[in-house]
Parts: sequence; C-alpha cells; structure tokens
Amino acid sequence: MAKTLLDQFELAKKSMPGGVNSSTRLNRAIGVPFYAAEGKGSHVRSIEGKDYIDMCCAHGAGLLGFAHPAINEALQKAMSLGYLNSFETEFHEELASKVCKAIPCAERVRFCSSGSEATMHLIRACRAYTGKKKIMRVEGHFHGYHELIYIGGQPPKDKFPDNRVKPYIESPGIPDEFAEFIIPIPYNDPFALEQAIVEHGHETAVLIMEPVNYNTGGIKPKPGYLELVRKLTAEAGIVLFFDEIQSSFKKSLGGAQKDFGVTPDVCTIGKSLGGGLPLSAFCGKSEIMDLYQPVGKVQHSGTFNAHLVPVLAGLAFMNEAEKPYFYPKLQELENQFHNGINQIIEEYDLNMVVPHHGARFNILLGRKTEAARYEETFCHNRETMFKFIKGCFDRGVYFHDYGGGPAHHGYSIQHTAQDIDTVLQVMEEVLADLREEING
Amino acid sequence: MAKTLLDQFELAKKSMPGGVNSSTRLNRAIGVPFYAAEGKGSHVRSIEGKDYIDMCCAHGAGLLGFAHPAINEALQKAMSLGYLNSFETEFHEELASKVCKAIPCAERVRFCSSGSEATMHLIRACRAYTGKKKIMRVEGHFHGYHELIYIGGQPPKDKFPDNRVKPYIESPGIPDEFAEFIIPIPYNDPFALEQAIVEHGHETAVLIMEPVNYNTGGIKPKPGYLELVRKLTAEAGIVLFFDEIQSSFKKSLGGAQKDFGVTPDVCTIGKSLGGGLPLSAFCGKSEIMDLYQPVGKVQHSGTFNAHLVPVLAGLAFMNEAEKPYFYPKLQELENQFHNGINQIIEEYDLNMVVPHHGARFNILLGRKTEAARYEETFCHNRETMFKFIKGCFDRGVYFHDYGGGPAHHGYSIQHTAQDIDTVLQVMEEVLADLREEING
Repeated sequence: MAKTLLDQFELAKKSMPGGVNSSTRLNRAIGVPFYAAEGKGSHVRSIEGKDYIDMCCAHGAGLLGFAHPAINEALQKAMSLGYLNSFETEFHEELASKVCKAIPCAERVRFCSSGSEATMHLIRACRAYTGKKKIMRVEGHFHGYHELIYIGGQPPKDKFPDNRVKPYIESPGIPDEFAEFIIPIPYNDPFALEQAIVEHGHETAVLIMEPVNYNTGGIKPKPGYLELVRKLTAEAGIVLFFDEIQSSFKKSLGGAQKDFGVTPDVCTIGKSLGGGLPLSAFCGKSEIMDLYQPVGKVQHSGTFNAHLVPVLAGLAFMNEAEKPYFYPKLQELENQFHNGINQIIEEYDLNMVVPHHGARFNILLGRKTEAARYEETFCHNRETMFKFIKGCFDRGVYFHDYGGGPAHHGYSIQHTAQDIDTVLQVMEEVLADLREEING
Repeated sequence: MAKTLLDQFELAKKSMPGGVNSSTRLNRAIGVPFYAAEGKGSHVRSIEGKDYIDMCCAHGAGLLGFAHPAINEALQKAMSLGYLNSFETEFHEELASKVCKAIPCAERVRFCSSGSEATMHLIRACRAYTGKKKIMRVEGHFHGYHELIYIGGQPPKDKFPDNRVKPYIESPGIPDEFAEFIIPIPYNDPFALEQAIVEHGHETAVLIMEPVNYNTGGIKPKPGYLELVRKLTAEAGIVLFFDEIQSSFKKSLGGAQKDFGVTPDVCTIGKSLGGGLPLSAFCGKSEIMDLYQPVGKVQHSGTFNAHLVPVLAGLAFMNEAEKPYFYPKLQELENQFHNGINQIIEEYDLNMVVPHHGARFNILLGRKTEAARYEETFCHNRETMFKFIKGCFDRGVYFHDYGGGPAHHGYSIQHTAQDIDTVLQVMEEVLADLREEING
C-alpha cells in the first residue's frame, strides 16, 4: 500500500520542524502538508498517487507550470556547462539586459535567490542613498520574512487599531526595537499618506509597497493613488520601492508598474522570474543601484547569488514570456476563470469576491465588493475557507491554504481551458455546499 | 576574435552594478570578474577560452567540483519529476534524516537557499528561545550579509581598537542602532570570554562563531577553548551557535563540531552541502528548532526554501560524501598540498603561513605561525596578495581574490594529484618572484 500524506507527515516531523521547510507548507485545510511525487504541466500528483489540478502554482512562482520544455532545456544546458557554481557568465548579462528592458524602473539589476533576500538587500541601499533610516510600509502588504520588514504588515484583528502606534511584531524572536523603524500606513488613503509624509518624511528612507496586494484580499490601487504616492515620495526625498515579487510578470512583462503606468525608483521582482527555479532580483535607478560594491560601498554578496541554473531558467522564462502567444493566452484564461466564477457568485448570490490582476487572484469571503484597505478584509471567515479548500482538494483541485486567510491562487501558461472548466465545476459544487456558511 | 574578460565587464556593468551579482565577484587582483564559459571537474574555462585549475571552488561550495556525475544525475531526476517548485517531497525527509544523522547537534533541520538566510532565521529562534536579544560574536568570523550580524566582524585596522566599545557597521545602510545588539569578543581568549559572559550573559541570546575561522587567517580554536565556550554558554543560558556554513563537510561528514568534539546547541551548514547547487541549512536541538511554525510560533517560510533541485543535489552530495573513498581522498590531497607548500615556504624562507582544516586553507602573509585572533592577521599585505593571485592567474591557476585579504581557497574531490602538483609548481614560481616583497 502506498504511503499516505499523514504517514509522510509523521515521518518528516522527526527530522524537520513540523515536517516541512516553510511554515506555510502545512496545509491546515487538509491537516497535512501536500507531499508531491511528480508535477506535469498544470497537474501535480501526491505521494498517495492522486492527481490534482494545481491552483497553488508555487505561491505565484509557477507561471510556467511544471516540467516546461523551455526549463528542461535550460537545466540541460546548465549541466552541459558544468553548472559553474558561483561564477558570473555571459548569460547573467543577457538576463540582466532583458530585465532592464522589460521593467520600467530597472536601469540596473542584481539577482539573488529568495524574495526575502531581495527586499532586505534593497532596503539597505535605500537607507544608504537617503541617509535616513525609517521604513514606511502599507498594512496588509507582504515583503518577506526578515527582521527589517516582518513588522506591522498583517496584524491580527485584535492588534489592529494599535498597529499605527506600535507596529505589530509578526514573529517571536524579532526584538521590539526593530519596530521603531517602521511606519505603517493604510492602503489607498491619500490623507493618511500625506499626513505620514508630513510627519515622518524627514526620517523616512523608503516607502515600500505592493502595487497589487495579492497577499491580503487582492487589493488594487484606487485610481490616482499610485500617482499621488509617486509625487509625494519624490517631493519628500523618499525612495519609492514597489515590491513586485508577486506582481511581476503576472499580467505583462513590465509588471504592475507598467500596468498602472507609475514608475517607482526601485523594485523587487521574483517568483515567476525563475521559471520554476529559485530566482529573485532587485533593480532600479542606476544612482541607487550603483551604490552597491564593487562600484559603491553598500554590501550585497553571497556565494549562491545568481547561480547559473536559475539564471538559465530565468532566461528561458523571459524568452517564453516574450513570445506573442504568452500574455494573450494568460488573458484568455483570466477571462474564462473570472467570467465563470463571477457567474457562480451571482447565481448562488454568494457573499464573496474574487479580485484579480493577471494570472493570480484572491478569494475574499464576507463581502461582495473588493476591499480597498487591509481592515476591510477582516470580514473574511477562515473556518469557511478551510472547508472550501478541503472540498476542492477532495475533488482533485489543489488550492494552497494560507492559514485560512484571504490569500492568492492562480494558474500557469500550461493550464488549459479544460482545466479551468474543471476547476470552476469543482468550485461551484463546493461553494454551493458552503452557501449558507458563506452568506450567514 | 573571442570576447575578453574586460569586454564582458564593460558590457555587464551596463545592466548590473559593477558587472556582477556579488560584491566579491570582481577579482581585484586581475582587475575584472572571472566570466566563466564552462566547468569540468577541477578545471574552469573563461570566456576568453583559457583553461584554469580552479582553486576557488565556489568559495567553498564546490567540494564536488564541476559537472560531477552524481549531480548531473540529480538534475536529471529533478527534471523527470517536473522539479516540483515549492512542494515538499519524500526526498526532503531523506536528506533531513541524513543531516540529522551526520551532524552531532542536529535533531531537526530546515533547508533554505543561502548561508545568510540560514544564520538570519536561526538567530530569530535563538532569541525566541531565550527571551534575550543580544548577540555575542567573535572578531574575524563571518556569518553572512544581513543587518543582524554584518556588524563588528571584520573592522578595518584603524577601527579595530574601538570595535568592542562601538561595534563596526560593515556596510552603509545598516542603522547604527543595530550595533547595540552586538557584543564582539576576540577569539581564543578565555579571559575575554569569561568577562563578556559575566557582564552580558543575562542579556545575551546567542554566541555565534565559526569553529574554524577560514575567512580571516584560517584561525583554529586553541586546545580547550571550544570546551570552555560550551561550558560557559550552557551555564549562562546562552545558545551556542556554530556557523558551519564553511566548515561543514570540509574534513568530515560531521563538521568541525565532530572534528573538535564539541557539540553546540544549534548550527548552520551549507556551501558544500548543495553539491554545486544553492543549498544551506540550519539545525539543532529539537527544543529550539520546534519553536518554528507550524509547531511553534517563530516564522521561517519562503517559496524557494528547499527547492527540489538543490535538495536532490544535496542528497547526491551526501551519498557521495558517505562513500568510503571520499574523505581519505580529500585527506591525501590535503597532505600533498600542505607538505608541498610548507616545503616551498621553508626552502625560500618565506614570511607566510598556510593554515588549513580539511579541504580548505588560508594564505596569510607577514607571519610564520598561525594567528590565534583577528588582530594578529593585520600583518598581512594586501598588495602582495594581489600580485600573488595575478601571478597564479597568468600561469593558469585560479585563486579567487577577496580584496587582497588573508582568505580561503581550496580544492575538490575531482582535483587530482597532478592538479595539486601543477598548483604547487605555479605557487613556487610566483612566491619565488615575490620573495623580497613577502619578507620585506
């Protein structure tokens, strides 16, 4: 008999805390982590031998799906070159040029492994550039798991009103003193933004934000908001930092900064960029980026930065995404999925909304209109979300669980219209079952 | 005509700060970064088409050399499984079990991409475990490029005497306030250690150290020192953290903690672990490690943690390193190299020393005996080191340059006795030429 997910969980807990390498890999809705055996296109098979349509898509990093031929070719090429661990190659420059061409704010770029590394290294340059120390951030937005910024982002409901006075420390082990550098503001609130800049502009190095807040409610900028952010930060000598780890490449090659027509000073990009391999990047104006050694004095180094394997995979991703079929096909899937889900919501008169920007969407329960700021997502019911994810799982569709939160899901370029139809059918069944709970 | 390294440098600077993805990839001794075209076993070919014996070995991560058959097999396997971006698999548990078996302090382990990530995430758990905030660290030791610990490690000569009063901030962009958490102590000084613990034990969460300080002078612990460290930290309720990113696997499967017979509470391992792919890990006692979510409340998460490609490469590395031939062969190379270089030093009566522990060594100029603490390496002459590296480069041997510092170099399991002979011949020629400068 095949091993079950529970068997593997019990075994893995002996050598890894919680049997996983990331807090969020325990899928609380199904009670175990999803231990995978094989991925193919839009499908993933568990170690139990069951097949699922994958709507996790590596938390947004799987825009090419699994086992994409272009990525396999990149891996073969890396192998044939001896994978050249820690060396720069001509391919690094090729990828860097492509990024600079695609991303509006990118005059220079540096590659590293994780999104957390990218925001951390870039905050350092923002501080060096301005000579200031504080970080303005937007509630609900997510910028990685490190001591500089894992503060004041997603306070629980009961800590929320205090967050702007004493930013909420999001993990034990982060000293309280680190919160003194953080200035949280609400999203989409011009008055609060102006007020914060008047009060703190002189000490604020950087305003970091997700142009689309996929993580918490799928919140998009209101018309004119990003333009105001751009104007006020420029006037106050604050570096404007778009964290596009999640939004980059989801709707276009240029990221949300291109989609919304507002260019920050610097940004991070990632997830999709690696084509399925671990790659992130930070980029921006040359006057900020050239502060890094060996040009300037700011440190950014590391043996594994920009390893050839992810760099070649990144290059393969960019080549693929540049092809004429790519974004039109993603747009078709987006249209199909959202027409479908909106029809279901209407038909069953469900108290929920599915905001989206490109190939990634959010499921927010408890309201029929999109939220504009973090606290407007408190209506979301986590217990119902667990049931939704479990219901889909039992029917062969894998949504990842983020503690029951109003979080992001998506599809890849290898998903088919048939996949989306199946997903919609399954969602309809499950949502119909949960109708009373959702609307109650 | 083939492109030169300088051509590529000029081109790459247009899209990447300094034409590289890491400060240290500019080899100042040769004036350009080494842009590589292909790696094979112990050799690396530049884009100019010239062949070099590689003594950089990916800064210590290349213990298997380039294009190792076991790693190619791992890459093929990852491909055949669809590379399963962001999912846990059975292979994760297999690798975790092997690490727990090999590394004395490892009851549980977590994998991530870079060494910097590993020390950062582990410091968080140390703080959560003790409820204390300060970090005791040893001068000269290196623990990654992040705001928690890139302070007070390697102050320049002229900032040195002050370092223990006001720890030296090693990069612009790190706020001064972060230095208030750092307590630097000298290595191998029992009195200073005792004094620091008496004074700061009540507020110190963790003592972090490299059991072998490869980075700055190749400094090893004096007999009894690590035992004293172990005793005093235990008594004071300070977590003892060995940073074995560099020392792990260099001399044995168990790392320096096994080699010296002193078991810390927690440790990081990395570089070699990935077999040429980007993989690091942090591990330790279960009572500390199980503080991480989803068991405890400390955050450690990330899409790219423990990606299947490096995990399979790590498994291939461990399988290779467990084979009976592996460490005896590395020991032979170590014997051959150090007998050879010591003979050269003696024959030319050179004022230098080449400390080593396993397959990694340090070249320290300006003294004939090994240093015991950081300030004893100030005798080293950086300008002479540049000339040494350039001389070897011109003769087909690639030593990486770390700003002329007394830094680490090494060989891999694919290096042959013939490679080592060639390296020794080249070193002899170059050192003979530089004799007056070295001794002057």
